[in-house]
Amino acid sequence: MRQRLEYEELDRIDPLARFRREFILPDGLVYLDGNSLGAPPRGARERILKLLDEEWGRDLVQSWNRHDWIGLPQKVGAAIAPLIGAGRDEVIAADSTSVNLFKLLIAALRLRSSRRSIIALAGDFPTDLYIAQGVAESNSDLKLRIVEKEELETVVDAGTAVVMMNHVNFRTGAINDMAGVTALAHRHGALVIWDLCHSAGVMPVELNVCHVDFAVGCGYKYLNGGPGAPAFLFAARQHHDAIHPLISGWMGHAEPFEFDSRYRPAAGVRRNLSGTPPILSLAALDAALELFKHADMHLVREKSMRLGDAFIELTAPLRDEFGFGLISPADAHRRGSQVALTHPEGFAIMQALIARGVVGDFRAPDILRFGFSPLYNRYAEVWDAARRLEEIMRQREWARPEFNLQRAVT
Amino acid sequence: MRQRLEYEELDRIDPLARFRREFILPDGLVYLDGNSLGAPPRGARERILKLLDEEWGRDLVQSWNRHDWIGLPQKVGAAIAPLIGAGRDEVIAADSTSVNLFKLLIAALRLRSSRRSIIALAGDFPTDLYIAQGVAESNSDLKLRIVEKEELETVVDAGTAVVMMNHVNFRTGAINDMAGVTALAHRHGALVIWDLCHSAGVMPVELNVCHVDFAVGCGYKYLNGGPGAPAFLFAARQHHDAIHPLISGWMGHAEPFEFDSRYRPAAGVRRNLSGTPPILSLAALDAALELFKHADMHLVREKSMRLGDAFIELTAPLRDEFGFGLISPADAHRRGSQVALTHPEGFAIMQALIARGVVGDFRAPDILRFGFSPLYNRYAEVWDAARRLEEIMRQREWARPEFNLQRAVT
Repeated sequence: MRQRLEYEELDRIDPLARFRREFILPDGLVYLDGNSLGAPPRGARERILKLLDEEWGRDLVQSWNRHDWIGLPQKVGAAIAPLIGAGRDEVIAADSTSVNLFKLLIAALRLRSSRRSIIALAGDFPTDLYIAQGVAESNSDLKLRIVEKEELETVVDAGTAVVMMNHVNFRTGAINDMAGVTALAHRHGALVIWDLCHSAGVMPVELNVCHVDFAVGCGYKYLNGGPGAPAFLFAARQHHDAIHPLISGWMGHAEPFEFDSRYRPAAGVRRNLSGTPPILSLAALDAALELFKHADMHLVREKSMRLGDAFIELTAPLRDEFGFGLISPADAHRRGSQVALTHPEGFAIMQALIARGVVGDFRAPDILRFGFSPLYNRYAEVWDAARRLEEIMRQREWARPEFNLQRAVT
Repeated sequence: MRQRLEYEELDRIDPLARFRREFILPDGLVYLDGNSLGAPPRGARERILKLLDEEWGRDLVQSWNRHDWIGLPQKVGAAIAPLIGAGRDEVIAADSTSVNLFKLLIAALRLRSSRRSIIALAGDFPTDLYIAQGVAESNSDLKLRIVEKEELETVVDAGTAVVMMNHVNFRTGAINDMAGVTALAHRHGALVIWDLCHSAGVMPVELNVCHVDFAVGCGYKYLNGGPGAPAFLFAARQHHDAIHPLISGWMGHAEPFEFDSRYRPAAGVRRNLSGTPPILSLAALDAALELFKHADMHLVREKSMRLGDAFIELTAPLRDEFGFGLISPADAHRRGSQVALTHPEGFAIMQALIARGVVGDFRAPDILRFGFSPLYNRYAEVWDAARRLEEIMRQREWARPEFNLQRAVT
């Protein structure tokens, strides 16, 4: 095994190293689960305190105007836009990924109303597939096809209304070909919806360069917006006026405070808002995004690839000796910011790692996921994680009864 | 005008007086807008700090289990249940009122699929009407009828799938007849959805006594859950298993963490969850609800009626002299916890009141709303509000240019 010193040296010359100070992380914890829940930025904590004390706690209802709570969905959307290659007027923060995906799937089907098929990718995050199933079952004319990547070329056709897909697979971290799949769909006149949950904030995403129609993503992973932070929704400008929202709530009305009795959709992407947004959660996300104004996404991507490569290299001997599988692409260019190993005792091994201060997560049936968040993770932490994994395997720590109590793991 | 001393005496003997200490309110502010945004409970602030420092900030992703974030939608629902006459397993906190109403409207239409008409009440909160319009326009077989209260008896018939209605009118504060309208709908085989935004937390609501099918409501008004706090959703137990959610997100799946590729709805009301909930906002609501465990809702209602009566009595001479209308029921038993006046200069008058430290709100075109939140409002504050209104009118303070700059008011 290489020496820890080598990785400490990488940290010393890391151009992103200064960002670590901007996060709240317990001393000594190796937190490799930013792909599930990002660590808290100090600025988010400060922003919430200000909200409690100077906004809700002092200006009360007037804060909707005075502190522009009412503009937060658009402000947060505009801050996310440059991270995903979108125009600032093409993104809003709202609801959850599931609800936004529902809204866009309906929008896409309405824009392609003569077509009947929805194509989704097998192995994509379950809520995406569930939402597609729910929509498809709502109308007997619709047909949902859940296909393998290799089938796309033959399956997408003139009957396809929409192709929906995760940008980065939540289990393996494999990157799907945004430009290629979008072009394929468009050649057949279909629309695309990309789910950026596992790519937004950790790699450059080029929605407009790829001519993407719609996208969604969550605020609580690499964007560090806090648990259950509001999600975002992207709609390409050319579709804005053609969208007729099915969930036509007041926040998407042209003039919500006229209390008109007839729904009139707002201009632009704002019509995709529905109800009143959760301001505490939205403000935390807003503050978290401040960091990205100073982070070069190409440097982030570069470090993300190197962190993953380091983990793959450092765990290679262990994988051979202890029977781990590597289900993530070994080529960093094909991989998002996580490395997934498999092991029949994966659940217990992850529990043992967590007890040793290395937090990744477990995904049934046998996957150990390690996520790398370049704004706060250090190269030396990758070394520490690999070393502790080795110790756990060598000493069979995972076999202890306390690590084998199965329970819900998020 | 009666003496302030009389009202101070009422405060001295008020059995709910001790709750005032549990809220953060600026000194001297007369806050009569709890019907729009409730004041912050001290416990909500403490809970958020704990969440920032000991949950997200220390236990990070493990908090989903360790601090039971995953159970919050049900825990919060169970805390709301006794306030609205529901079983603890019949309520969840989730999404916004708009989204929950959408979900339940779809659920109701699926349960009455041979029927084609949705009946809603004219003058109900706009988002409710917008959601109904959006759903009705999604299917040319459906018909939305927006009717006056007096028409209900003749309009509800064997073709009615669902009757939806606000429990308390957001403009006038008039209470609608939950038992009567529900019975009327049921006599014709229709279902009902009640929107409790302006009644939950400020008066006893008896959903199960009235045999209500479905209800929604928001967490940020009288429940004091914070700006844009998650809403709640009630479904009567007998409907639980028959609901097929259209927005079939992973949080409503029987086993979300099995990452099954097929949607299987959870048992009970939980299947009405969709995406990941905004934990910061949900935790604030959870903490705010603690106060209600110690508040007798009949005492709350009693005080609410007396606060409103006092305001109506104290402003009577002003209404005559300065041409205000009273559009709220004078009879407290027919009125929720707000009093609404009208005046052609309503906007400017409300701005002048706010400048004088009396916060109500303005609703276009000419309505001044004053909400009474019995857990923190005092009788003497009602006197202060009436006195300052008198001064503003007598001195024509409202005519100052700075009070006449029209802008969005929430």
